[in-house]
Amino acid sequence: MTEIGIGIIGGGYMGKAHAVAMSSVGAVFDTLLRPRLEMVCATTADRADQYRRAYGFARGTGDWRALVADPAVEAIIIAAPQELHCEIALAAFALGKPVLCEKPLGASLEDSHRMVEAAETSGAANMVAFNYIRTPASQFARKLIAGGEIGDLTWFRGEHTEDFYADPDAPATWRTQGMSNGTMGDLAPHMINAALALVGPIDEVMGAVETVHKTRPGTGGAQEVTNDDHAQIMCRFENGVMGHMYFSRIATGRKMGYAYEIMGTKGAIRFDQEDQNALWLYRAAGPEATRGFTRILTGPAHPDYLPFCQGPGHGTGYQDQIIIEARDFLTAIETGQPVWPCFRDGMHVNQIVAAAIASSAERRWRSVSSV
Amino acid sequence: MTEIGIGIIGGGYMGKAHAVAMSSVGAVFDTLLRPRLEMVCATTADRADQYRRAYGFARGTGDWRALVADPAVEAIIIAAPQELHCEIALAAFALGKPVLCEKPLGASLEDSHRMVEAAETSGAANMVAFNYIRTPASQFARKLIAGGEIGDLTWFRGEHTEDFYADPDAPATWRTQGMSNGTMGDLAPHMINAALALVGPIDEVMGAVETVHKTRPGTGGAQEVTNDDHAQIMCRFENGVMGHMYFSRIATGRKMGYAYEIMGTKGAIRFDQEDQNALWLYRAAGPEATRGFTRILTGPAHPDYLPFCQGPGHGTGYQDQIIIEARDFLTAIETGQPVWPCFRDGMHVNQIVAAAIASSAERRWRSVSSV
Amino acid sequence: MTEIGIGIIGGGYMGKAHAVAMSSVGAVFDTLLRPRLEMVCATTADRADQYRRAYGFARGTGDWRALVADPAVEAIIIAAPQELHCEIALAAFALGKPVLCEKPLGASLEDSHRMVEAAETSGAANMVAFNYIRTPASQFARKLIAGGEIGDLTWFRGEHTEDFYADPDAPATWRTQGMSNGTMGDLAPHMINAALALVGPIDEVMGAVETVHKTRPGTGGAQEVTNDDHAQIMCRFENGVMGHMYFSRIATGRKMGYAYEIMGTKGAIRFDQEDQNALWLYRAAGPEATRGFTRILTGPAHPDYLPFCQGPGHGTGYQDQIIIEARDFLTAIETGQPVWPCFRDGMHVNQIVAAAIASSAERRWRSVSSV
Amino acid sequence: MTEIGIGIIGGGYMGKAHAVAMSSVGAVFDTLLRPRLEMVCATTADRADQYRRAYGFARGTGDWRALVADPAVEAIIIAAPQELHCEIALAAFALGKPVLCEKPLGASLEDSHRMVEAAETSGAANMVAFNYIRTPASQFARKLIAGGEIGDLTWFRGEHTEDFYADPDAPATWRTQGMSNGTMGDLAPHMINAALALVGPIDEVMGAVETVHKTRPGTGGAQEVTNDDHAQIMCRFENGVMGHMYFSRIATGRKMGYAYEIMGTKGAIRFDQEDQNALWLYRAAGPEATRGFTRILTGPAHPDYLPFCQGPGHGTGYQDQIIIEARDFLTAIETGQPVWPCFRDGMHVNQIVAAAIASSAERRWRSVSSV
Ligand SMILES: NC(=O)C1=CN([C@@H]2O[C@H](COP(=O)(O)OP(=O)(O)OC[C@H]3O[C@@H](n4cnc5c(N)ncnc54)[C@H](O)[C@@H]3O)[C@@H](O)[C@H]2O)C=CC1
Ligand SMILES: NC(=O)C1=CN([C@@H]2O[C@H](COP(=O)(O)OP(=O)(O)OC[C@H]3O[C@@H](n4cnc5c(N)ncnc54)[C@H](O)[C@@H]3O)[C@@H](O)[C@H]2O)C=CC1
Ligand SMILES: NC(=O)C1=CN([C@@H]2O[C@H](COP(=O)(O)OP(=O)(O)OC[C@H]3O[C@@H](n4cnc5c(N)ncnc54)[C@H](O)[C@@H]3O)[C@@H](O)[C@H]2O)C=CC1
Ligand SMILES: NC(=O)C1=CN([C@@H]2O[C@H](COP(=O)(O)OP(=O)(O)OC[C@H]3O[C@@H](n4cnc5c(N)ncnc54)[C@H](O)[C@@H]3O)[C@@H](O)[C@H]2O)C=CC1
Repeated sequence: MTEIGIGIIGGGYMGKAHAVAMSSVGAVFDTLLRPRLEMVCATTADRADQYRRAYGFARGTGDWRALVADPAVEAIIIAAPQELHCEIALAAFALGKPVLCEKPLGASLEDSHRMVEAAETSGAANMVAFNYIRTPASQFARKLIAGGEIGDLTWFRGEHTEDFYADPDAPATWRTQGMSNGTMGDLAPHMINAALALVGPIDEVMGAVETVHKTRPGTGGAQEVTNDDHAQIMCRFENGVMGHMYFSRIATGRKMGYAYEIMGTKGAIRFDQEDQNALWLYRAAGPEATRGFTRILTGPAHPDYLPFCQGPGHGTGYQDQIIIEARDFLTAIETGQPVWPCFRDGMHVNQIVAAAIASSAERRWRSVSSV
Repeated sequence: MTEIGIGIIGGGYMGKAHAVAMSSVGAVFDTLLRPRLEMVCATTADRADQYRRAYGFARGTGDWRALVADPAVEAIIIAAPQELHCEIALAAFALGKPVLCEKPLGASLEDSHRMVEAAETSGAANMVAFNYIRTPASQFARKLIAGGEIGDLTWFRGEHTEDFYADPDAPATWRTQGMSNGTMGDLAPHMINAALALVGPIDEVMGAVETVHKTRPGTGGAQEVTNDDHAQIMCRFENGVMGHMYFSRIATGRKMGYAYEIMGTKGAIRFDQEDQNALWLYRAAGPEATRGFTRILTGPAHPDYLPFCQGPGHGTGYQDQIIIEARDFLTAIETGQPVWPCFRDGMHVNQIVAAAIASSAERRWRSVSSV
Repeated sequence: MTEIGIGIIGGGYMGKAHAVAMSSVGAVFDTLLRPRLEMVCATTADRADQYRRAYGFARGTGDWRALVADPAVEAIIIAAPQELHCEIALAAFALGKPVLCEKPLGASLEDSHRMVEAAETSGAANMVAFNYIRTPASQFARKLIAGGEIGDLTWFRGEHTEDFYADPDAPATWRTQGMSNGTMGDLAPHMINAALALVGPIDEVMGAVETVHKTRPGTGGAQEVTNDDHAQIMCRFENGVMGHMYFSRIATGRKMGYAYEIMGTKGAIRFDQEDQNALWLYRAAGPEATRGFTRILTGPAHPDYLPFCQGPGHGTGYQDQIIIEARDFLTAIETGQPVWPCFRDGMHVNQIVAAAIASSAERRWRSVSSV
Repeated sequence: MTEIGIGIIGGGYMGKAHAVAMSSVGAVFDTLLRPRLEMVCATTADRADQYRRAYGFARGTGDWRALVADPAVEAIIIAAPQELHCEIALAAFALGKPVLCEKPLGASLEDSHRMVEAAETSGAANMVAFNYIRTPASQFARKLIAGGEIGDLTWFRGEHTEDFYADPDAPATWRTQGMSNGTMGDLAPHMINAALALVGPIDEVMGAVETVHKTRPGTGGAQEVTNDDHAQIMCRFENGVMGHMYFSRIATGRKMGYAYEIMGTKGAIRFDQEDQNALWLYRAAGPEATRGFTRILTGPAHPDYLPFCQGPGHGTGYQDQIIIEARDFLTAIETGQPVWPCFRDGMHVNQIVAAAIASSAERRWRSVSSV
């Protein structure tokens, strides 16, 4: 058991989640590396100090470069806005420090390419924070598919839908500016990553990306919205499977609509994050009269559940995904082995985002490798 | 109360459903016109006679022209394969007889155009049998949307998915031959009709139509499948709403996956025919803490429910949709007023099918009016 | 194929349901006996005439004795209030005519005993209209249990809950007067019948029967309610299984809460009439990781589904249960064989009702045979 | 912010859960008191040392008295078997140390009485670990009821059902010995506590407590089972509401069946821990046509959700309940104010357990105050 000093840049939504995860991951998973909350960074030293006290870090700073450079900071978590991801990651890799970067990898595909190169040159552990795919249910879905339980896949449908911008009168903010903060930039990556994990690489896409509410109330009148409210893509996977994905921040009624259904020649799987402790499995076997979708409640028989609770059906939650992620990041550092999804995986996601946006603009299918 | 002589062509799946419906529609809805099961037609006189006895018709015939021409047959229901729809309808309209035609209207868009022309020339009642949209739940969904209950629409997703051909070893039959028997030809029309009813006319489509299992076991070895197993279309409605539809006969686990979700600025609606007596409604109103999708059970407060049962939540079934349809057909005949969906409406559906297939082949968006 | 003249006493909620059922049962099930709607009876000749025209009967009458005595009436359905069941049934059996009697069999246990005796003396077909147990799903549940699919039973929980009297300000009517119109008298019999069918005979009960809203607005001020709003019973089945049932007319939110769950050593079954086309089955078999409740949609593989529809998941509704019941009644007449549930079965239900009410008053367990 | 030294007795299922909770509660809730994992105790020093390393405690011990007496241990969590609860608690209170005790409070009602007395004499913080009632959903249910949202209550039904002993061949262990380890002793307390919290005090009960599988395979042949497999109680609350509860460890298919439904004159609530992030609310208001149960997903608008996640519908899990509990325990210590449920509340639960067992043996209603 060795201590490792953790530095987190950002102390907001995800910065806190990572801080909490790093506080408990050792006790949950009995990890070899034991995180020490060394330093937290925010836009100002004051804000950082508040985070420090609240989350229990040793130190706070208003300067992310100081955090990255600090010798006691041995691993870095980037939980700051997407525009900062690239610069921070490059600085960290320059010092050979491991990085766990929040999604999306880079704010642009170019950023992502640079980040992959830096990560691979440095040889340091690198990982992208696609937490949803780490629930026991979704891990189990991957296992079932990989094990051939539902046969050859024939169809994939995924969505990541929320409704935080469903109200046309919700005000303009930084969220309504810049493609990396729009639906394709910000929400789509989670589900695209799931699609790649569950089905395999994507060859080509046909996108339709749209800003439904073109202006929103801003300070001093209506302000133009410069990114997308929702988007859909039809896609073709390398293995021939056809698919569809839908992403939205205006999906009235949907709170955490990270959902997918996958059909195969021998079965089917359905999942909805709004009921994250259940996986629905259909198997085309046995007498017709007893076939149907089975609601499997996650439990100790499923991946990464037992460390959280010995009882089946007792359930894990959002924060637990981040703890599983923390364990994987620590394992990557400890073993020196790449852990999925690494930066290259995150870049592939950005590539699909870019191809879909291009396809939408050109109103034609685009191969992913063409962007 | 006046009797009306009904002739049904076909006594299979739908022929029987219409016969049963015509037997009970009077008692259920207290209709002015009271159907008399006059004549049924099948491929052979023998088969027709079996249907006659089973369903309680006065007479049977192996010749549909005889049925159409028979003076005691005052209204005609076409429940024969799609290839026959056009010819039969034309014969009936030539005699000025009302026609209720099973979906899809014509086996091809050309057929449909001819059928519309004949119908409109004759002035006789004409109606297409899109029964699913007639459930109390879906009728209520239409009403809610029309009444502005969910605000301005922003997104439509529909599907019609079944799994009767999910098994790759299911044998080739007439169902695997001819576009009008494939998924786009045979299943898609129901949901396209729903989309038009719920959201409005469709301007353009981007289709992806596919035969997943290219051959199937036939008599004397593998036989080529000449129509599609599943298909998806992205679409743009005239009112600007973006949408997506998916159709499949290989959707493992799905039995009657006629399902849709519709989002608007003030609410959302979800429906799945596999739970046909429930409509899910979300309203973006009231305190955040008590918002959520409400599972509304159909009851006497919903369209066309009460005649079937005085108790809410007691539920209607498949056959009841056909009875509602029968009532509407009788009303059309009685009042001389067109009833939705008439042949022209059915032709619009075929148009979208044709546009989607063309779009898929050309891999580009197609405007519906261009086919 | 032989015609049989049907007489129905009552043309309200259930009278209509039976009339519709008798109109279509022949076409649905291709029965040997073909019902002819001969006569309908209501409180007045006028009302009867309205029913006659609406439902398509040949004749109407305001005098049920005339109906019973009429030679063209060959089988009788009692769809009048419970207080009339006994007298009508006795008159019918005196003439040797078959009777289908709405639930509960008699308005009192004494009535039920007399009715059983008359039925058995006459030798005529006799049946009680417990329609809910005839859905394809519940029939299949019986089959699964009988086939040992869920092992030895260990627990039964049933309920029949509705909310038509949930509002304390709902006015007093005949429904709030007389034990046979209260929850135990009127609603409980359906679920008690289900318990007997699914698990077996009941030995003893411990009841708690209660009038929650002691008065209700009546004409001229508050009126006393003389029957029960809700009731629960703990019970012990002959085979040793322990159970519980709950009945309510004030179960806010419940519309058709006819629901049960049955556990066994090898599996479990759950059913809720509010989703009547689904049966949930759990089997304690196979790997732990894929166990769960399976939502089985009814289809042609389940009892009495196929005659209504060739497609699985398309669903049956309330009216279809009455059609299945009509088929069984016709079969009983035709074959001369008793059909379950006959009057004796209905009397057993009344016995349990009586035992539960007595138990509640005495606040102690009562054996069913002691009443 | 002050550190507080935590000592946990037991490092198994719940000992770990409390250790993890104490690791992260500070970061999650920004508590004033910040736990320091001071000491853990197990049956042997070796086992304790393993727990120490795994969960990150400073020290371990095989002697719980040493832990209780240790000056650096400032607050004690009892996560050892029920038989030990009393003795440990008494020792802790003798030193004036705060105690969080796992459920059930005492292994017997006598134990519980002694524990309450000791707690109240000492004046130290005391709390019982009924974690399930602390989910955001169940906290919100309490709030809705207290706020009159569903009107005057009319009915309560609760259950705590699991299936870990559903297999009759599951071997005998300490779990099958002693009433405090049976279903009434071990599982019932959670739901009884919920009933008290949601509805109010219970006046009298009528129980039926049963051992279904009388023997189980043990070392050297069949071994007698000396406690109960399942149990039901009918109950009457002080406010007049009638209720029912069912508890089972043989409820095939149920994993975490902590579920309740509560009806009132204006609405109803349904909850099932197997879908712990949803609360179902029905309100008898607005047009009949849009009424139904609403599935409310927990989110920042609900009690104690926001500290775990800023996004609604993202969900909390089992471990998070223990973190909320830890926060409440820390608050009790910090403020010196009693926190619900304190030891006296836990004793009331044991009282109901005892009354139900006595009632079952005597086959008659028992008032709770009579035990
Ligand atoms: N995996 C997931 O489920 C989620 C991921 N995210 C991702 O996490 C990242 C952070 O998002 P949120 O936590 O939601 O944002 P937030 O606005 O809640 O927090 C951002 C934090 O970054 C800090 N920050 C901003 N500029 C900085 C600078 N120049 N130097 C130092 N610190 C700076 C702020 O002080 C703040 O603490 C984003 O990349 C976002 O896409 C966000 C939400 C959910
Ligand atoms: N609305 C709905 O839910 C459904 C609609 N359909 C539609 O109903 C129509 C009939 O389909 P099914 O009933 O499933 O087919 P089916 O194969 O069960 O029955 C077809 C009937 O047509 C008769 N027929 C065939 N050729 C004939 C000829 N030349 N002359 C006279 N009769 C002839 C056959 O004897 C048979 O009775 C089709 O257009 C189909 O697309 C089918 C199933 C469901
Ligand atoms: N199986 C089921 O699901 C249901 C069964 N029932 C049962 O059906 C029976 C009838 O109930 P509803 O149809 O709901 O009542 P309703 O009030 O709707 O109809 C009662 C009918 O009986 C007729 N009637 C009353 N007194 C008569 C008399 N002296 N002579 C001739 N006709 C008379 C009335 O004219 C009326 O048509 C009852 O026994 C009830 O318990 C009722 C509802 C559902
Ligand atoms: N709130 C909840 O959801 C749950 C509560 N519980 C309760 O938690 C308590 C502990 O149960 P589990 O954690 O399931 O048991 P467990 O068997 O997993 O752990 C018991 C622990 O107590 C320790 N222990 C036993 N005897 C001891 C002694 N004489 N001295 C020191 N340590 C000793 C053992 O070493 C072990 O670490 C029980 O009271 C149980 O009822 C258990 C499971 C769930």
